[in-house]
Amino acid sequence: MRIIVFGADGYLGWPTALYLSARGHDVWAVDSLVRRKWDRLCGTQSLVPVASMERRVARWEAVSGKAIHWCKLDLCDLVALEQLVDEVQPEAVVHFAEQRSAPYSMISAAHAVETQVNNVAGTLNLLFAVRDHAPDCHIVKLGTMGEYGTPDIDIEEGFIEIEHNGRRDRLPYPKQAGSFYHLSKVHDSHNILFACRAWGLASTDLNQGVVYGVATEETAMHRELATRFDYDGIWGTVLNRFCVQAAIGRPVSVYGRGGQTRGFLDIRDTVRCVELAIANPAEAGEYRVFNQFTEQFSVAELAERVVRARAHHGLETVVEHIPNPRSEKEEHYYNARHQHLMDLGLVPHKLADTLVDDVVTVVNQHVGRVRVNTIDSVVDWRKGGMVAAARQADSRAGQLLALRARAAVPVGAGAR
Amino acid sequence: MRIIVFGADGYLGWPTALYLSARGHDVWAVDSLVRRKWDRLCGTQSLVPVASMERRVARWEAVSGKAIHWCKLDLCDLVALEQLVDEVQPEAVVHFAEQRSAPYSMISAAHAVETQVNNVAGTLNLLFAVRDHAPDCHIVKLGTMGEYGTPDIDIEEGFIEIEHNGRRDRLPYPKQAGSFYHLSKVHDSHNILFACRAWGLASTDLNQGVVYGVATEETAMHRELATRFDYDGIWGTVLNRFCVQAAIGRPVSVYGRGGQTRGFLDIRDTVRCVELAIANPAEAGEYRVFNQFTEQFSVAELAERVVRARAHHGLETVVEHIPNPRSEKEEHYYNARHQHLMDLGLVPHKLADTLVDDVVTVVNQHVGRVRVNTIDSVVDWRKGGMVAAARQADSRAGQLLALRARAAVPVGAGAR
Repeated sequence: MRIIVFGADGYLGWPTALYLSARGHDVWAVDSLVRRKWDRLCGTQSLVPVASMERRVARWEAVSGKAIHWCKLDLCDLVALEQLVDEVQPEAVVHFAEQRSAPYSMISAAHAVETQVNNVAGTLNLLFAVRDHAPDCHIVKLGTMGEYGTPDIDIEEGFIEIEHNGRRDRLPYPKQAGSFYHLSKVHDSHNILFACRAWGLASTDLNQGVVYGVATEETAMHRELATRFDYDGIWGTVLNRFCVQAAIGRPVSVYGRGGQTRGFLDIRDTVRCVELAIANPAEAGEYRVFNQFTEQFSVAELAERVVRARAHHGLETVVEHIPNPRSEKEEHYYNARHQHLMDLGLVPHKLADTLVDDVVTVVNQHVGRVRVNTIDSVVDWRKGGMVAAARQADSRAGQLLALRARAAVPVGAGAR
Repeated sequence: MRIIVFGADGYLGWPTALYLSARGHDVWAVDSLVRRKWDRLCGTQSLVPVASMERRVARWEAVSGKAIHWCKLDLCDLVALEQLVDEVQPEAVVHFAEQRSAPYSMISAAHAVETQVNNVAGTLNLLFAVRDHAPDCHIVKLGTMGEYGTPDIDIEEGFIEIEHNGRRDRLPYPKQAGSFYHLSKVHDSHNILFACRAWGLASTDLNQGVVYGVATEETAMHRELATRFDYDGIWGTVLNRFCVQAAIGRPVSVYGRGGQTRGFLDIRDTVRCVELAIANPAEAGEYRVFNQFTEQFSVAELAERVVRARAHHGLETVVEHIPNPRSEKEEHYYNARHQHLMDLGLVPHKLADTLVDDVVTVVNQHVGRVRVNTIDSVVDWRKGGMVAAARQADSRAGQLLALRARAAVPVGAGAR
């Protein structure tokens, strides 16, 4: 199958491109490389060294005998995107190409606007490009479980049957996202649902939980095939951050009481889920949502796992509770359905202590690269991050945005 | 009360500014004037001549003895916006400043992106500016009834109590908007709800129906105080378009079967509703939604009203059904609650035949200005509008967007 993976330079995009290539698909790996720029801007860095896309693709061909087509392209560049979709005529696209850090989106107005504009405009462009150049292409989009927030009822997969005043309808599940990043995915979901209904596009929205793990079968084949591993306060997810804190002899820092419960999954399940969605596509006009996670844990439970796994090696770990920089409930009901992918044949890798072991091992290998000053949260949900610097950014970004808004649609584009 | 009206050059923004000024409030009228540019680009024009903002404000002072502070400013320009909010220290802001045409948003990818970027980024900037410079300010935002779509259950005001698997919660009402414009308002609603919860802002979202009517008490005081009247296929709303079609001897064109039912209200009720919201503000941390309309009609019923009102004057009117350019249900259940504003004291102006008379009179006064070639719909929901021209626009807008995405957050803005 001809498949384009957008966001193929990312933590999950790259392993997904490899996984699909290994299984015989003809894969185009597309990325703007903006994530590497954001790392430079934030002073952050992947714990595991990541090779350039050119090196990775060459190494993959040397190791596997399979070619991946690498293409540097920004989804916000509609001209280039249309050309690519028209030339490749993909049967499926996988869309990871979004700014995906909640703290980044909360630094300042400029960062919130950048996140939502980048994500929403990129997805809109993709919808139009597919409509106009490959209308039968199945759009597999990465959403997030964070779109739902923490309602006091069970979370369903995208839609909910509501009975109200004696009538019934199946409606989009209400969304209560908790950051401007998570909200950008809510906006995407609404836009995609509409495009499927209005234009007959076919799309699967994978509402993914928090991913952990350092490698897949393919990325482990050579150090130049490794994917990134983020542990810092901006880009790192919770389990990875805990393991790094422990490895350098710091307390594992739980935000607030730690009762925040979320869905989690192993990186090896992410790539499998994407493949399952592609192998069992949505129908024309169908917008479907799969909740993509395998287990629920509270943050405090995760910390406990790290303590236990390290104890097996005779390592001591301290857990501390720090003031929560986020606005979120720290104790709440949480019960989210995740049946669709199981029905399609997903066999989950459960979070075993051996997995935590693996992470601890990798962290110890690269412990010299840890940038200690990037681990702590520097973004407060109520006040933003690093106020002075952020304000400067706002000023300039605001001016640029105003210029752009004026220039976006040239004379003569409207109705005659 | 110190009040800023954003979007004060628009059909409703201008009458609102006058209405609030007439009632003794200290009003800042703010607009980027982009609507006048869009008119030039689309070849459209208000049927009623509209004076420049400078003239309008001077005329208002001459007529009423009251000053309105006029300020040309784009909400996408965060620096200028922050300065304004900081200087004025408004007690309330009214936010009309959005691209508000569904057909415009469906012309092409560039128009969809422009609409969502303009509306979402402008609203995000306003939320941050209020948080940082006037956190007690009440944000009155104009949403739309179109956010709800046409569910098969009753539409509530913003939230719905859901019982599911034996548990209950009050959640945001599910949204199924029918154009990229309507979707931009859905995105705004989610962003504002989050900002109220995370930052303690106070906001009222007025989910407005389709507005009709040519004048308010204040705009009728002098021809230089008149507000715009749109009747064309891009900017005109349905009743106004019908009256113009009839006035120039054309058939009144109903899209499809005409069973599409919506909420409607008189322009004189719009300004009153905004005043009621301001006089009874949301509390800190509260995001509340008022459905702002007074009556429900189907499109076919509206056409029938026009036929009847004209018949009183011995005028004949032909109704025709044309292929529907939009993707929407043409027969559906529709029952939307609109109690909150009634509880606050709204006494509606019902759509009387005399109102249709008024519109017909105004149309006949200015019939020489009707641009006949702009009346018909030129935008198809499935194919966009004027494909060749739109595609050119897409190309250039895409390039600009890509440049902007790169430039939005300068070096050093992120975490250290």
